Amino acid sequence: MLPFIAISVLLAITPAYAVWPIPRQYNVGSTPLRLSSSFSIKLSGVHNAPKDLLDAVARTTAYLRTDKLQALVPDRGASSAKAIRSAKTLNSLSLSISTNAKVRSISDEAIENIESRVEGYTLTIPADGSGAILKANSTLGLFRGLTTFGQLWYDWDGTTYSLEAPFDIVDAPAYPYRGLMLDTARNYFPVSDIKRTLDAMSWVKINTLHWHVVDSQSFPLVVPGFQELSSKGAYSASSVYTPADVKEIVQYAAARGIDVMAEIDTPGHTSIIAKAHPEHIACFEASPWAQFANEPPAGQLRLASPDTTKFTSALIKSAASLFPSKLFSTGGDELNANCYAKDAATQKDLASQGKTLEQALDTFTQATHGALKEIGKRAVVWEEMVLEHQVKLANDTLILVWISSDHVQAVAEKGFKLIHAASDFFYLDCGGGGWVGQNVLGNSWCDPFKTWQKAYSFNPVANLTAEQSALVLGGQHLLWTEQSSPHNMDPVIWPRAASSAELFWSGPGGDVGKALPRLHDVSFRFNQRGVKTIALQPLWCALRAGACDLDA
Amino acid sequence: MLPFIAISVLLAITPAYAVWPIPRQYNVGSTPLRLSSSFSIKLSGVHNAPKDLLDAVARTTAYLRTDKLQALVPDRGASSAKAIRSAKTLNSLSLSISTNAKVRSISDEAIENIESRVEGYTLTIPADGSGAILKANSTLGLFRGLTTFGQLWYDWDGTTYSLEAPFDIVDAPAYPYRGLMLDTARNYFPVSDIKRTLDAMSWVKINTLHWHVVDSQSFPLVVPGFQELSSKGAYSASSVYTPADVKEIVQYAAARGIDVMAEIDTPGHTSIIAKAHPEHIACFEASPWAQFANEPPAGQLRLASPDTTKFTSALIKSAASLFPSKLFSTGGDELNANCYAKDAATQKDLASQGKTLEQALDTFTQATHGALKEIGKRAVVWEEMVLEHQVKLANDTLILVWISSDHVQAVAEKGFKLIHAASDFFYLDCGGGGWVGQNVLGNSWCDPFKTWQKAYSFNPVANLTAEQSALVLGGQHLLWTEQSSPHNMDPVIWPRAASSAELFWSGPGGDVGKALPRLHDVSFRFNQRGVKTIALQPLWCALRAGACDLDA
Repeated sequence: MLPFIAISVLLAITPAYAVWPIPRQYNVGSTPLRLSSSFSIKLSGVHNAPKDLLDAVARTTAYLRTDKLQALVPDRGASSAKAIRSAKTLNSLSLSISTNAKVRSISDEAIENIESRVEGYTLTIPADGSGAILKANSTLGLFRGLTTFGQLWYDWDGTTYSLEAPFDIVDAPAYPYRGLMLDTARNYFPVSDIKRTLDAMSWVKINTLHWHVVDSQSFPLVVPGFQELSSKGAYSASSVYTPADVKEIVQYAAARGIDVMAEIDTPGHTSIIAKAHPEHIACFEASPWAQFANEPPAGQLRLASPDTTKFTSALIKSAASLFPSKLFSTGGDELNANCYAKDAATQKDLASQGKTLEQALDTFTQATHGALKEIGKRAVVWEEMVLEHQVKLANDTLILVWISSDHVQAVAEKGFKLIHAASDFFYLDCGGGGWVGQNVLGNSWCDPFKTWQKAYSFNPVANLTAEQSALVLGGQHLLWTEQSSPHNMDPVIWPRAASSAELFWSGPGGDVGKALPRLHDVSFRFNQRGVKTIALQPLWCALRAGACDLDA
Repeated sequence: MLPFIAISVLLAITPAYAVWPIPRQYNVGSTPLRLSSSFSIKLSGVHNAPKDLLDAVARTTAYLRTDKLQALVPDRGASSAKAIRSAKTLNSLSLSISTNAKVRSISDEAIENIESRVEGYTLTIPADGSGAILKANSTLGLFRGLTTFGQLWYDWDGTTYSLEAPFDIVDAPAYPYRGLMLDTARNYFPVSDIKRTLDAMSWVKINTLHWHVVDSQSFPLVVPGFQELSSKGAYSASSVYTPADVKEIVQYAAARGIDVMAEIDTPGHTSIIAKAHPEHIACFEASPWAQFANEPPAGQLRLASPDTTKFTSALIKSAASLFPSKLFSTGGDELNANCYAKDAATQKDLASQGKTLEQALDTFTQATHGALKEIGKRAVVWEEMVLEHQVKLANDTLILVWISSDHVQAVAEKGFKLIHAASDFFYLDCGGGGWVGQNVLGNSWCDPFKTWQKAYSFNPVANLTAEQSALVLGGQHLLWTEQSSPHNMDPVIWPRAASSAELFWSGPGGDVGKALPRLHDVSFRFNQRGVKTIALQPLWCALRAGACDLDA
């Protein structure tokens, strides 16, 4: 890893340019430079360039033409017009890959084992108009470098320019896992919305979509051999993700350097399975739901039943097989003991096997995780599986810390690798008010709203030893969708989720005041590309870096 | 006014039907009824029906065809298919007006003095398929009745039906003022977004757009004789509202029963005026801004200057003349005394006139309100003008209570009519995090998020005597747009703002649990009409009235 220290120093020099996340080494000058009308990206240094890299080059070239993002200054660039007109022109960016091995596709590298992904690159843009050069040891690294290159330019009167040549950038992520979680079960999101979100994720170098695809409320995933779950459990016949949809999403993601880590949450959060298989669900829609589940409807897989265990293992194996990722989450959060205490079938199973509930949960988990292992997948679980239950997990299991960032230390002490996903920093849905009915003045359980500033200021290694710190693979924002739909998807996610993208790429310690002007640029560039971000400030502030700071 | 008491009793009978706000008397049956394919709305009872009523009839007819809103039940209406098919058909709705006077247009009646508007109607829909009848004493009342009629129907397989005929509805608003405030200065909203919002407002019988059109950050309003304010103070040449735009908005609103009450906030919140007239602004962009204003940039009109007073009066007179409304707000909130204390010109003016700042504010206000009176307008001000300053206001001045609902009583004790607009109940922007820069973990000044439930549970006459209660004209939700833009406009406003619309039409005392299923219907119908509301709950809950209640 590169040292964290360079960031704030460099930001002081370049407060307004739109590169995000900020590269680990980012040296810029003050010479105007513009793109030639015949500017092109050359792949002569990449033997047999894979199709997804060619596509990425085409997209980058298109964005350079169509972004037309004006500088966020009061005159939007007018006073630089003369300097821009007389600037030297850049004719090309040349990509080259420094590997002796066969050049692989972005898509192949994106789904590589998380610890093995190579995303670094170097980007050099001279001020004299001689060719720019992007080098990497991987196709994925070239893709990250292309993304950076596409963020360096503004538009004035049809000219694509920078005022800060030369650029000398050496970059690589601080953490290998930078994710975004989307829940498509509380409310459904069409494939097109997911694809737009994948594009936006790639623009800030997020490399994992954690797809919480099903839950108690609906089962939109069409799983081969288990089609009855979606045909009876999806919100409608069209509110589903078919294997073809999944393939489309997974390929779209991978071509953009994004791995899709899917989740079938078990044994809780499974009420809807009873629509097709009532025999597998305890306390189905039991009332009052609050005694049986954290949110309605109640219903959990009968974890002590050998039949249910077999069913679940086969389901998870089939579902996981739809995704090329090495990672698959079996969930494991919010297990309700009362649901099983009141379920005669579970009590009978426990008694006949002479097992406690915890022992049964262990057996159940060995089975589902064993099924994943059979197909070469590594299990991911929510924190309760290590902190609240007596379950034996494989050493390589990844733990998602969600209840509180205060629990990170306890997970690290157990020796597991972990992903930051804490509700007190990264939940995009907090602060929108309680959604449960007949709750007169109720606010969110996780009030207040989690600002981008709060996420940005998170310390991923707080209270951890150096050895424990090495267990932190990264982190992510999360959108639980009880109160979200395609209607508010863009503004509820963006640009907030960019804050964790920078935190886990550039490393912690960034200054929110210095980050804000760049985050405005992220936001405005997203808008130019069709992603409808929320306004961070009045436009008056966005055009005047620092003028709306607390002490300005 | 009709008694409040009927509401909750009737809601118990009709929990799921989409009528919103709930009529004051709402008797329904349980007989299926469907609209004939040749269904029409007849105007034979309205002599010389005005064009805007004909247009409203056309829109209602179109919505009946295009809404295609399915019932919010798990099977979306499938199990009612047989009953729907064999239902009697309704061929017509006949409108009639019971007035001896000349029939006026909706638009004329919508801008009537607020206390004189007549919005009541009766609507009778027999179960036997004989014609439905809508009667009112005003064209505006007929329009409100048409709106109700358009909410009674669901779609199944192309058939527009109800399961609750006959309907016997007697309706009129509890309060004459039901508003929505939109700030178009912190961020700009194109005319098309305002028009879509006006449509949505009319669907829930909101009758006033309080248009906070300019502020310190930008001056988008093109005011005849003062064009330099917008040419130098708008965010861009296209981010303006020309007199033609204003006319389009005002006419669009009026045809939908909505009065546009514009605001030029004075003497604070006027920094941007200095771009064209630096001579009129004290403490222009003074730093640190927090000592001179509640948000950046600082700058206030030089209220002690006779020239500035003359300028402001003429500006307000010209701006107000663009709007047919009887009401115009001169603002008056958040006046910063330090700004004037540090302004040499103001100190000189005060000294030469031998006035205190409060005396100068009084003179200034007499001038601006006098200018409004000359053109037949009634002044509206924020609460500080009566609670914090020694300003003599005309008895008919309307007071907007915004700082806290706890201040309502004090305003009423002064004997002024008032509008509820309190930040602790009705601010749509609260709870989105602090937007001021370099504010690391800062949350909204008015945290937490104000839920629809909170607004809905508001008591408009808390702590007021009967006499004081008569001073309450109604209330509104408000959207300050530091963190809003067209991107999140729909989900941040809707369906939340419908909660105050029902509160001030149907009267207080509604039950949030019983209201929720109807509010879902509002939300889904809005979606069908192109307004992108936020999801209130997972769809699973929306399809099962009450199933996600706290105690379900």
